[in-house]
Amino acid sequence: MRKALLLAVLSLAPATVAAQFDPEPHRAVANQLIQASLKDSFAYKRLARLTDGFGHRLSGSESLERAIDWIVAEMKRDGFDNVRKEPVMVPKWVRGEESAELLSPRRMKLHMLGLGRSIGTGPAGITAQVLVVKNFAELRARATEARGKIVLWNVPFVGYGRTVVYRAVGADSASAVGAVASLVRSITPGSMQSPHTGAMAPYDTTGRIKPIPAAAVTVEDAEMMQRMQDRGEKIEVKLMMSARMMGVSQSHNVVAEIRGSERPDEIIVMGGHIDSWDVGQGAMDDGGGCVVTWDALRLIKQLGSKPKRTIRVVLWTNEENGGMGGTGYRDQHRAEMDKHVLAMESDNGVFKPAGIRYGTGPGGEAIARGIASLLRPINADSIAVGGPEADIAPLYALGIPVITLDTDQSKYFLYHHTEADMIDKLDPVDMAKDAAIFAVVAATVANMPGTLPRVQPARPAVP
Amino acid sequence: MRKALLLAVLSLAPATVAAQFDPEPHRAVANQLIQASLKDSFAYKRLARLTDGFGHRLSGSESLERAIDWIVAEMKRDGFDNVRKEPVMVPKWVRGEESAELLSPRRMKLHMLGLGRSIGTGPAGITAQVLVVKNFAELRARATEARGKIVLWNVPFVGYGRTVVYRAVGADSASAVGAVASLVRSITPGSMQSPHTGAMAPYDTTGRIKPIPAAAVTVEDAEMMQRMQDRGEKIEVKLMMSARMMGVSQSHNVVAEIRGSERPDEIIVMGGHIDSWDVGQGAMDDGGGCVVTWDALRLIKQLGSKPKRTIRVVLWTNEENGGMGGTGYRDQHRAEMDKHVLAMESDNGVFKPAGIRYGTGPGGEAIARGIASLLRPINADSIAVGGPEADIAPLYALGIPVITLDTDQSKYFLYHHTEADMIDKLDPVDMAKDAAIFAVVAATVANMPGTLPRVQPARPAVP
Repeated sequence: MRKALLLAVLSLAPATVAAQFDPEPHRAVANQLIQASLKDSFAYKRLARLTDGFGHRLSGSESLERAIDWIVAEMKRDGFDNVRKEPVMVPKWVRGEESAELLSPRRMKLHMLGLGRSIGTGPAGITAQVLVVKNFAELRARATEARGKIVLWNVPFVGYGRTVVYRAVGADSASAVGAVASLVRSITPGSMQSPHTGAMAPYDTTGRIKPIPAAAVTVEDAEMMQRMQDRGEKIEVKLMMSARMMGVSQSHNVVAEIRGSERPDEIIVMGGHIDSWDVGQGAMDDGGGCVVTWDALRLIKQLGSKPKRTIRVVLWTNEENGGMGGTGYRDQHRAEMDKHVLAMESDNGVFKPAGIRYGTGPGGEAIARGIASLLRPINADSIAVGGPEADIAPLYALGIPVITLDTDQSKYFLYHHTEADMIDKLDPVDMAKDAAIFAVVAATVANMPGTLPRVQPARPAVP
Repeated sequence: MRKALLLAVLSLAPATVAAQFDPEPHRAVANQLIQASLKDSFAYKRLARLTDGFGHRLSGSESLERAIDWIVAEMKRDGFDNVRKEPVMVPKWVRGEESAELLSPRRMKLHMLGLGRSIGTGPAGITAQVLVVKNFAELRARATEARGKIVLWNVPFVGYGRTVVYRAVGADSASAVGAVASLVRSITPGSMQSPHTGAMAPYDTTGRIKPIPAAAVTVEDAEMMQRMQDRGEKIEVKLMMSARMMGVSQSHNVVAEIRGSERPDEIIVMGGHIDSWDVGQGAMDDGGGCVVTWDALRLIKQLGSKPKRTIRVVLWTNEENGGMGGTGYRDQHRAEMDKHVLAMESDNGVFKPAGIRYGTGPGGEAIARGIASLLRPINADSIAVGGPEADIAPLYALGIPVITLDTDQSKYFLYHHTEADMIDKLDPVDMAKDAAIFAVVAATVANMPGTLPRVQPARPAVP
């Protein structure tokens, strides 16, 4: 009786931050989830059906919406609660036809992919001399040479974060000194003549910098043009791009839940982004993240006993070129934000896991360590501090604690945003382990007495 | 006087096989060659000018002949003796336009390259269901299913020699059971959606097997179609190829020498093949082999003192799809064959060297070990038994000893016959070491008292 009363009080009370955490009561369930995940290749096979069946899934495309409808139907068959699509308006960018041809010192087709958000060249294309630079400083030093030219940013890869800035703002930086187009060496540590697409930052909106077309070329072709320039050869390129923005289009986040048995209003959310670039099949980025979190929910459902808190999977749309899925989710669920006790996302490739990364308020480390200890059977019990993936960044900014996967990153940027992002780059056992991690963390946090300490908001949670 | 008489006798006598070999008298020259090679990136830069300047060089193409003319002019500037082109008639195969599209279960452009020697599909293309098989045994077992279909050989890579047989005879094997076209999974241990071309064996000439078009698809696309078949999905592909043989065309071997000072009629020949496939730039296969052997001759020339025997560089044409350069050289130099004391070729990529491989008659090991000991300064003094590369196989068959490079092979088949065969896959220091190896071996064999033991001919040296 006293216990019942206490539970009633607890379920009305706001989330109580755990002062400490004892993993032992959760170990049996964790082991059950791990064993269930490892017993077959369910996640891998489901991802194969998704990616082979629908291909790449750029937001605004029909293939994305067809994939979403298939997922919703599958999730209903899985027996989840409240399976639904939540509408999100997304920018629609279309690549169209595109090519780049070296005209001088020798005719040769270059290997390229336009950058997301880029404008086109017009039907006549842009034919101009090329100025190769290695960084912003070199362009500043050679600014007078850049006028009327195509600037090629031949920037060696020194980590994604430090290199991708040239993809982001290379076009505006080149236009600011009078260039007519911008080419960026693909952001990758290795290449098989593989261009890597990706979004550029929005063009300058002050009217001071004229928008110019922007595309990625391969490491090989960038290095070749560097050598040509170094030998004093005149480089001329013809760039043709019919890329264009076509306003906005309706897409959807996919949502499915297992409602909590005791605190259904308290929510653990986890997922990946269901959109991809329009090359390859978006298996690694991020079909895999969608499927392992979805599979975690299936594993928890199969336990038979409901979690105490609600566990929700969200497959966000438009991560790649707008982030409207992540902000849309936040805005549509504004009233629930205080009740979100944890947000998790996989968007670094469902490779071999080492453990988890956590972003919480002070005191989270001991709890994260306790939860991770449940992952020892799959050698994934390491913990590290880490921030949110893109789609849960808006939640993290509101103070919601985050946990993400810590996986082997040695291959991620080789395949990232290329034709080679296909499911054969992933491994069924790694994926099963990743699904188990999400299942164990979600079930544990759903059932633990308190919650993870909330993050000190990075910016005011308004309005 | 006595010495002069002895020399006169020696220079008239046939080559004398060395009973033993003392490397010490050769060490100073070897060290000089090694130091000269390592002091800059001459070979790498020359290869960059070749590959950036002329691109790929399929035999029968204009780009090959232009590259050959440039090489001849450069070799004359190098000051070699008897620089010349030796005409060779080569088969001219033209790829033309080509594509493969998956029509069912979903429309998608497949990543493909037609195989050298393949016929085309005709302008209407070939649209048919696909039967995926893993090996010859599976096709035999499913022979009745293959009739009227496109057979896809989805054979995992288990080493080049064991896997390439499906590229060689896949088409005839499929046609023999009524297939209408043959697709082979690219022969490679790894893939970035990269198709690998290469020659197929000549079609059956008995008239019993109808020739059918043959192309390579990528590992990713082959695995995808395998999954589709395993799920029971109907796979339909449209293959379009305008490939065709266009008779024969005149190409050339490039020859340059340093005439021997004492036994000019005794010849050490070394080289690579100057033709390539019509994708990438043939930097690894085999521009690098051409340039390092050519550079070895330049290094020897720079010594100032002439070698006693003649050292000849030959850049063979048409290795990739016919081998007419290698057999043509043998036939045009038939009268000199008994005077060829050593043949060397680099055609496995000018990667980091471990040492040399030798193919000689009995007694060669001690001499090879002695020569290799001169390569200790660059850690390339290992020796191994090995046969000839393709262009010197006709010489080896006549009993001429061979020495080839033993280099790191870990990346070779990743880039082999693809768009990614570009010079950035090579390293200037590795190339300098490889050039030094050829220079040291050639100079040593040119100057040593005897010669390497001749090989027991594999077949009669007739007629």
